[in-house]
Amino acid sequence: MTPSAPAQAPSPAIVFDTLQAYQRSVALRAGIDLDLFTAIAEGNHSLSAIASRIKASEKGTRVLCDFLTIIGFLEKQGGEYSLTPDSAVFLDRRSPAYLGTTANFLMSREVAGLLENITEVIRHGGALPSDHGALEPEHPMWVEFARSMAPLMQMPAELVAAKFAGSKPLRVLDISAGHGLYGIAFAKHNPNAQVTGVDWPNVLEVAKENARKAGSAFDVDFGSGYNIILIPNFLHHFDTATDEKLLRKVHAALGPSGIAIAPEFIPNEDRISPPRDAMFSMQMLGTPAGDAYTYSELEKMFRSAGFARSEMLELSPFPQRLVVSYK
Amino acid sequence: MTPSAPAQAPSPAIVFDTLQAYQRSVALRAGIDLDLFTAIAEGNHSLSAIASRIKASEKGTRVLCDFLTIIGFLEKQGGEYSLTPDSAVFLDRRSPAYLGTTANFLMSREVAGLLENITEVIRHGGALPSDHGALEPEHPMWVEFARSMAPLMQMPAELVAAKFAGSKPLRVLDISAGHGLYGIAFAKHNPNAQVTGVDWPNVLEVAKENARKAGSAFDVDFGSGYNIILIPNFLHHFDTATDEKLLRKVHAALGPSGIAIAPEFIPNEDRISPPRDAMFSMQMLGTPAGDAYTYSELEKMFRSAGFARSEMLELSPFPQRLVVSYK
Repeated sequence: MTPSAPAQAPSPAIVFDTLQAYQRSVALRAGIDLDLFTAIAEGNHSLSAIASRIKASEKGTRVLCDFLTIIGFLEKQGGEYSLTPDSAVFLDRRSPAYLGTTANFLMSREVAGLLENITEVIRHGGALPSDHGALEPEHPMWVEFARSMAPLMQMPAELVAAKFAGSKPLRVLDISAGHGLYGIAFAKHNPNAQVTGVDWPNVLEVAKENARKAGSAFDVDFGSGYNIILIPNFLHHFDTATDEKLLRKVHAALGPSGIAIAPEFIPNEDRISPPRDAMFSMQMLGTPAGDAYTYSELEKMFRSAGFARSEMLELSPFPQRLVVSYK
Repeated sequence: MTPSAPAQAPSPAIVFDTLQAYQRSVALRAGIDLDLFTAIAEGNHSLSAIASRIKASEKGTRVLCDFLTIIGFLEKQGGEYSLTPDSAVFLDRRSPAYLGTTANFLMSREVAGLLENITEVIRHGGALPSDHGALEPEHPMWVEFARSMAPLMQMPAELVAAKFAGSKPLRVLDISAGHGLYGIAFAKHNPNAQVTGVDWPNVLEVAKENARKAGSAFDVDFGSGYNIILIPNFLHHFDTATDEKLLRKVHAALGPSGIAIAPEFIPNEDRISPPRDAMFSMQMLGTPAGDAYTYSELEKMFRSAGFARSEMLELSPFPQRLVVSYK
């Protein structure tokens, strides 16, 4: 059953472009590594000035600048390069919104490696047992995650805190604190908030050699009586049963009328929109049992764990959404 | 000198999407490897039917199908998947225009590996001396190239033959014959054409152990008196001086009023358009001295080699162009 004849002549362009899409990732990472965007922001616009500033060959600089122009990160006029508005905000190292460090995690050997045996992973339905190492709590990739992804998490953390921190005395537990930004945002918005962090030990206590002895979110004592428990980007790492187990602990640790807040990549029920949330499933397929859960799946987990009701809120323009669940 | 304030709020989406663009390449390759498109073309539309046909887990199949829907290779309606018109033509293994094999070359360890140390390659201005191996004539990647890329070359080879083969007796030399498709297309269009092929020996004579003893395009005797010499996708591998040396040989081998025809990725003088031709420079940067040359650069090479005049012709809709040069 092939579809009816296309309105325009078939073109192999999409096949060719997609098989070479990895070059875009590689080129952007090179621009970040060479600090090309900062070099241009500093006032270097000609090929020779940029090449000399980033200590690279003129040919290599020319090819990289042209490629980054084509894929939307630079503008080229009369042989001179300048930053696009987005590059100026997010890729100039001196910008407060600099996102260059995210490349260290998103294109790390560990994260990209999750998809290396993708054909076998699809057959199996998740990471092969021999590849489970990177998901272990003690793996250094989680330290890199905490360090590198913080800038990207700042915006949603601010949005969530602005919505929920209020000004009254508040006890907040931040599970999977990692970068700590959600808890920090709450403390900043509400000086009366008392914030506690829980995470895999090597992320919270990078330097401590005995970190392994401490507990993780699954076996550490949460305490009790919290008004808000934050569960940012945590549920997508595990299967439903594991998540429900954690959520029962969260439920028990909340005080009366407490709420749980879970920022997550949440595809619509069609699982193909919004694109960024839905595409996250592929990244999670590379883990042993993770997934990008739909709202109905998440709602069911919270309900099974004892929560009275849940709702989903948008985090626009950030490509994530919130599940807010009421004890 | 940062650009003026953007018309709309800055968004990190382009950074995030580009750093993850490699997932698109990986997912398409997985779909091709699992023969997912053929499975759907055969009439398997539900998740369970597709998963069973490709012998993969339902979860893995679901994630892959959704991802391929989002990036434009499948359509999803009521939980059932079907092929897009382009996928039906180019990714169903039973289609005469099947392009799946191109993944074997475009995403091979050797080709992707050319950009692995991209930051160093940009600094250096080409492949590091330690990485020159893949460009050696005897490297098996060229055999893979000849086998895998043939389907993609068929369309431009047909276009070129239709334009230049005519019907009169014709002596054609096909340099860099590789897949042989340009010469074959001439022979098919014109039964009076006598076609000779020249290429790196292991591509033409894969099985012969003593292939190394034979000559390459640079030292083999071309003969003389040709009406047409085809130089498809050859000049971009070398620096200008090497290309001029080859073109002088080509000039000498042409008979009176003979022509040389070079299908190439040819960026406009701005080097950022058309995108596919211009982006090819990045792939070539990974080689020791290759490049995607502009028409003015190619025209100068042909002129220096003794050609009287050149012109550029479009190969639309194929993303390449032709330099035609007259003795």
